[in-house]
Amino acid sequence: MTFQRIAVIGLGLLGGSIGLAVREHLPSASTTGYDADPATRARAGDRQLVDKVCETAADAVCEADLVVICVPVGAMGEAAAEFAAALPSGAVVSDVGSSKQSVAAALEAALPGVAVIPAHPVAGTERSGPDAGFASLFQQRWCIITPPEGADPANVAALSQFWEALGARVEVMTASHHDMVLAITSHLPHLIAYTIVGTASDLEGVTESEVIKYSAGGFRDFTRIAASDPTMWRDVFLTNKDAVLEMLQRFTEDLTALQRAIRVGDGEQLFEHFARTREIRRSIIELGQDDTRPDFGRSDHGNS
Amino acid sequence: MTFQRIAVIGLGLLGGSIGLAVREHLPSASTTGYDADPATRARAGDRQLVDKVCETAADAVCEADLVVICVPVGAMGEAAAEFAAALPSGAVVSDVGSSKQSVAAALEAALPGVAVIPAHPVAGTERSGPDAGFASLFQQRWCIITPPEGADPANVAALSQFWEALGARVEVMTASHHDMVLAITSHLPHLIAYTIVGTASDLEGVTESEVIKYSAGGFRDFTRIAASDPTMWRDVFLTNKDAVLEMLQRFTEDLTALQRAIRVGDGEQLFEHFARTREIRRSIIELGQDDTRPDFGRSDHGNS
Repeated sequence: MTFQRIAVIGLGLLGGSIGLAVREHLPSASTTGYDADPATRARAGDRQLVDKVCETAADAVCEADLVVICVPVGAMGEAAAEFAAALPSGAVVSDVGSSKQSVAAALEAALPGVAVIPAHPVAGTERSGPDAGFASLFQQRWCIITPPEGADPANVAALSQFWEALGARVEVMTASHHDMVLAITSHLPHLIAYTIVGTASDLEGVTESEVIKYSAGGFRDFTRIAASDPTMWRDVFLTNKDAVLEMLQRFTEDLTALQRAIRVGDGEQLFEHFARTREIRRSIIELGQDDTRPDFGRSDHGNS
Repeated sequence: MTFQRIAVIGLGLLGGSIGLAVREHLPSASTTGYDADPATRARAGDRQLVDKVCETAADAVCEADLVVICVPVGAMGEAAAEFAAALPSGAVVSDVGSSKQSVAAALEAALPGVAVIPAHPVAGTERSGPDAGFASLFQQRWCIITPPEGADPANVAALSQFWEALGARVEVMTASHHDMVLAITSHLPHLIAYTIVGTASDLEGVTESEVIKYSAGGFRDFTRIAASDPTMWRDVFLTNKDAVLEMLQRFTEDLTALQRAIRVGDGEQLFEHFARTREIRRSIIELGQDDTRPDFGRSDHGNS
């Protein structure tokens, strides 16, 4: 079983990248797409993100065997309700949301009796909108599939094949485990980056112009993440509240311990902590999950 | 007045880059170098980081008109004391340390009567050691010079010209203002990155292998900074304690406010905060202080 008629609901960074990746890697499949924003639909048509941009969500899904909803996680239920009546029987509905328990609940409520298999490709950039997508976004990235209890294994297998065809590696886990893992690898990093960029722009003793000029000392890395889509991230924090608050609690404890080490001048504790965090970077690079070049390769390109 | 005989004490990322940049941009100048580690001296010789690698610090400085000390900020005083007796009269002594008040005090104590003009090129990568340096490290980066009260303006001007010749733009400010600015643009980002990478590797419900696999969700960016040299960073936090603790206090307040917004489900506050941090990223890119390509250009190179 392979999906042949793929409908993409939401044509931003993720939805657009799926459309382009399907065209490149699954040339026999056809794609339809819809976005609630008319300007995004127009731009998606210009860029040919999908074969056919439709004027309604119902038109986009009415012949689909796979629907992938690519909207902020707080808007998933509403987006699904909009096309529920037009969905062909037997179609699989999936998504790309960054929190999975709340999305599963919202989609199951909006689509009773439908084969809902939530998924999350762990890939993205700080850009958003119909101009942001590109076909290679999922290459060598992981896609996590979180099938609800009782999901048809054939649907899970078909969705896995779909993501593998787009270049991703697939892992299957429960939605609750996903939400805990992503709270530390993605949600907390974003919260912290948003926080420090805000802190820096509110200082009275240091001007914003100074913060910008001397950002190469480390700060600029955080500004990339803090430039991510605000609606998407608001929804992530509201829908994965428990896991995020749990991870934040642990982070705060660790930060307090380092703060104390600085205050009392405990150089040994600082050194020990700083020495062991090097290893994890090495593993990430070995696993192909980041650039091997120092400074993300910035210096190779005349940017530094 | 231009420096013609430059001694570099400490041949790691910064010292090595200075040696290579002088050869490229100031071909009429000669360079000597010394490192306390014999293996680093040998490697520096192989890579020809300076024209002549010396066996003692005194040999390296004995004919210099500019000495640049490139060791961790906690080791500056000792490094200066080692060559103090051999320093020619009239030579200027500078450094590249990330905290400036403590370095100024240490150098002035070790070198009474010497023209000490501390400086800090805001440039670097996560690599360290004699293999890490490269000639273009300072291109388009700022170098902050923090002359003590009563410094000879001719020396400040000569040091400014030196750094401009190496590709940097120069700003002059007080050491105390420098320490506050860098606390927010560099020291706090490093502390936070070191903290979250430690937090992630200590979790019991999420394996380290999962943290690594799904690091493309944002976490991997923090691991780059947290791979920086532990000795250097221990010293930075111990020597710029007050400013770091002050910035940390503000960061913690802001984080607590966002934590509360998540807990009570205040989506509006989250959205507002996340929307305003986008602007600062745009300014950093416009000022040439970071890469314009999404995701630091990772996706252009088959890394994602």
